[in-house]
Amino acid sequence: MKFITFKMKGQERFGVVDTEKSRVWDLISISEDSGISCPLTLLNGIMEGEEFIKKVSELVEWGTEKGSESYLIPLSDITWLAPIPRPTKNIMCVGKNYREHAIEMGSEADIPDHVMVFTKSPTTVIGHNDYIDSHEDITDQLDYEGELAVIIGKMGKKISQQDALDYVFGYSILNDVTARDIQQRHKQFFIGKSLDASCPMGPWIVHKNEISNPNDLHITTKVNGEIRQDSNTEHFIFPVEEVISVLSQGMTLEPGDIIATGTPAGVGKGFKPPRFLKQGDEIEIEIEGIGKLNNIVK
Amino acid sequence: MKFITFKMKGQERFGVVDTEKSRVWDLISISEDSGISCPLTLLNGIMEGEEFIKKVSELVEWGTEKGSESYLIPLSDITWLAPIPRPTKNIMCVGKNYREHAIEMGSEADIPDHVMVFTKSPTTVIGHNDYIDSHEDITDQLDYEGELAVIIGKMGKKISQQDALDYVFGYSILNDVTARDIQQRHKQFFIGKSLDASCPMGPWIVHKNEISNPNDLHITTKVNGEIRQDSNTEHFIFPVEEVISVLSQGMTLEPGDIIATGTPAGVGKGFKPPRFLKQGDEIEIEIEGIGKLNNIVK
Repeated sequence: MKFITFKMKGQERFGVVDTEKSRVWDLISISEDSGISCPLTLLNGIMEGEEFIKKVSELVEWGTEKGSESYLIPLSDITWLAPIPRPTKNIMCVGKNYREHAIEMGSEADIPDHVMVFTKSPTTVIGHNDYIDSHEDITDQLDYEGELAVIIGKMGKKISQQDALDYVFGYSILNDVTARDIQQRHKQFFIGKSLDASCPMGPWIVHKNEISNPNDLHITTKVNGEIRQDSNTEHFIFPVEEVISVLSQGMTLEPGDIIATGTPAGVGKGFKPPRFLKQGDEIEIEIEGIGKLNNIVK
Repeated sequence: MKFITFKMKGQERFGVVDTEKSRVWDLISISEDSGISCPLTLLNGIMEGEEFIKKVSELVEWGTEKGSESYLIPLSDITWLAPIPRPTKNIMCVGKNYREHAIEMGSEADIPDHVMVFTKSPTTVIGHNDYIDSHEDITDQLDYEGELAVIIGKMGKKISQQDALDYVFGYSILNDVTARDIQQRHKQFFIGKSLDASCPMGPWIVHKNEISNPNDLHITTKVNGEIRQDSNTEHFIFPVEEVISVLSQGMTLEPGDIIATGTPAGVGKGFKPPRFLKQGDEIEIEIEGIGKLNNIVK
């Protein structure tokens, strides 16, 4: 299942996408008509745990039996929001998790021996097709970073690598937009990573059942149609299981937590001369088994 | 006014402390009896802006006129919680904001030229008198950091230094408990700063009206009665106004945001040999005009 959050008639809703029909099941409406209960937001659903997937299946089944087109909204009619438009804490981001990217950012000495994590403020989050803010007045080094995002589905602490994927709800695509000059100036990455509208996420969260191995997914980033990043998550220095395990050794992970797993080589700063983003640039990140995330710099 | 959040009979409440009487005005009960409206949590109150202080004044006035002792709960009867027990995003922490502390952590080369900010997960927060987790199984370098905390009261972006204090709701005390070995191992500070129960905060938030200058407050940290940190916020490298201004240049600040302003010299790691925390240690941080924050390592 592919879960999206969207806006229609000024109201935030969520649903399950039927990709063949390019439509979304309007779960809230089905719930109202069927009497089958449904959480009000995707985040609330994720917090309900296993029960949630069962409920959603029932809702979709009921809608299918009714055969009413009114429950299937064309994707062209919605405004996309990030699947979790307002996370309840900062997004946790793994730094330098691909060998070649670590090298392009400096040298072999930059390849980390241990998982490195910084965060992005929840105020950075925007959805598919939304605009990335160029922040031209404060940076001239805005850069893209295509990444696989892991969404936690169950509270846990001291999670072993063997059990780690049991704690995942699903996967999404995330663009960890970064102001390189600000990132460098302030040493710790938070400020340069937390500009408003610098964290596109989406277009949806794919339930983990559809992804057999998160550490073996083709990932590409295009800018204005030109391939800039072309890699595979098999090149992670720290696979998803290890990241979850390391983070949870001293800190409780909670449903709805978002972990960005790091970006491959090919960011703008890695080119000589660097190729930073400018107004009008269109960025498309594609991850195998998930989909495409599109955003334009405004 | 001093705002606290507390637990009584299993319920989270908030109120205003009468320090002379060592009692707290139970605003929710006054609201129920008087019909004067009152937000359910301190965070909700902070989000209401100016209106909130007016409401609280009315509630306390009504309680005073009634003269009923039942509205004044002895502080000895409550369980303290952090004033904002669950922040809506990570706590933002300024690193190395006192010259002498930067030097004790390394050398003069560590004195920053620009504001450095990392974050702590909301899951770290505990209240006054609550227990700091020793995390003995994953660290043997647990350290204290006494700090002035700034609580934002108004949404803002691109805030000038001149206007910065208008965006403050009030001030509190925060212990940025840190696992030095984990902090060092993972380079970016987030993991070593985000252990569960590693962010005591309180005992209350003092409204900004009671603090004429946040950059001129005596601050001390005692461990088992011995003074370890003894400084004044006048030694900030980046005063509160500058921190708020820098953070808000690209990122919207929101009511309820918490900014920890950095710690003075005298942390455990600064001693030769280092003096890290161990089970049973009692830490008391005192800031002029605010009060004392006490916690024991368990």
